[in-house]
Amino acid sequence: MSDDTLKTLYVDELWDLLDAEEQLIKALPKMAEASTSEALRTGFEQHLEQTKTHAARLEQVLQALGETSIGKKCKGMQGIVAEGKEILDEDFDGALMDSAIISAAQRVEHYEIAGYGCVREYAQLLGEKEAVALLDQTLAEEKETNKKLTELARTINREAAGTPSVQAHSAGV
Amino acid sequence: MSDDTLKTLYVDELWDLLDAEEQLIKALPKMAEASTSEALRTGFEQHLEQTKTHAARLEQVLQALGETSIGKKCKGMQGIVAEGKEILDEDFDGALMDSAIISAAQRVEHYEIAGYGCVREYAQLLGEKEAVALLDQTLAEEKETNKKLTELARTINREAAGTPSVQAHSAGV
Repeated sequence: MSDDTLKTLYVDELWDLLDAEEQLIKALPKMAEASTSEALRTGFEQHLEQTKTHAARLEQVLQALGETSIGKKCKGMQGIVAEGKEILDEDFDGALMDSAIISAAQRVEHYEIAGYGCVREYAQLLGEKEAVALLDQTLAEEKETNKKLTELARTINREAAGTPSVQAHSAGV
Repeated sequence: MSDDTLKTLYVDELWDLLDAEEQLIKALPKMAEASTSEALRTGFEQHLEQTKTHAARLEQVLQALGETSIGKKCKGMQGIVAEGKEILDEDFDGALMDSAIISAAQRVEHYEIAGYGCVREYAQLLGEKEAVALLDQTLAEEKETNKKLTELARTINREAAGTPSVQAHSAGV
């Protein structure tokens, strides 16, 4: 029998998420820069600030647990970021590039929703009330970001498809 | 200006998802084998069969588009599967291993939910009605699998934490 407990898994995944957030802090400015839609670019810039807060929250949770050792590399986020880089290297113009970037960004958000969903549950079972509150906040923000991306995609994908947006139709223009 | 259209992005992402499903067809038997909970193992075995159907649906959609060239490597799923392999190599026992495997599996499902969510929207905008129906079916099944994993995690995480399950409490045992 190993000595590992749910706390071992909890700490492992917190480090994993911290590395994921740190990778994202490097990737988001590139996604913002490649965006042609101003709303999308602004969205990424705002999410960069939020991501820094998410990383700080994870550091706070790890410190409260007395965890200071060097963390691990999040291979999942490494793969997703590498895939996002491939998109930025594509020869896509305008709205099509924006659609492709949104698709990469939604993979990022979903990965994080899964990750925070798990550690939040572990924190709850381990009675880590303060951590639950912090992780819940981040989870809600990741879900909100994903929702905003879906909303932006509605207009941007239509533009990429060369289809007038519903909004333009209903406004009679 | 490049000649790329939303259809280029749609086809790219269909190939990406097909490769993701094929990677998963190889990974799921290992996840099933490492599971100690019978419900979890059976769940993975059932999801393996479903995953083969998901791959076949993508092949059908690509064939209908006249796409037969060799696809691409899904780097996102490569990273998530590599992370899952790390978990299987951990020295975790019983319910703790199951909790860790569920956490990896939920990252997989969320990645696929994001991916199918995007291609389903592109198919809709491109007027690919048959593809929309097929991709919708897969999307619903990925969401359902994620939900089942969350339900299994409720009991398994409690067991991993050494906390009696709510069910046991309410049954008075």
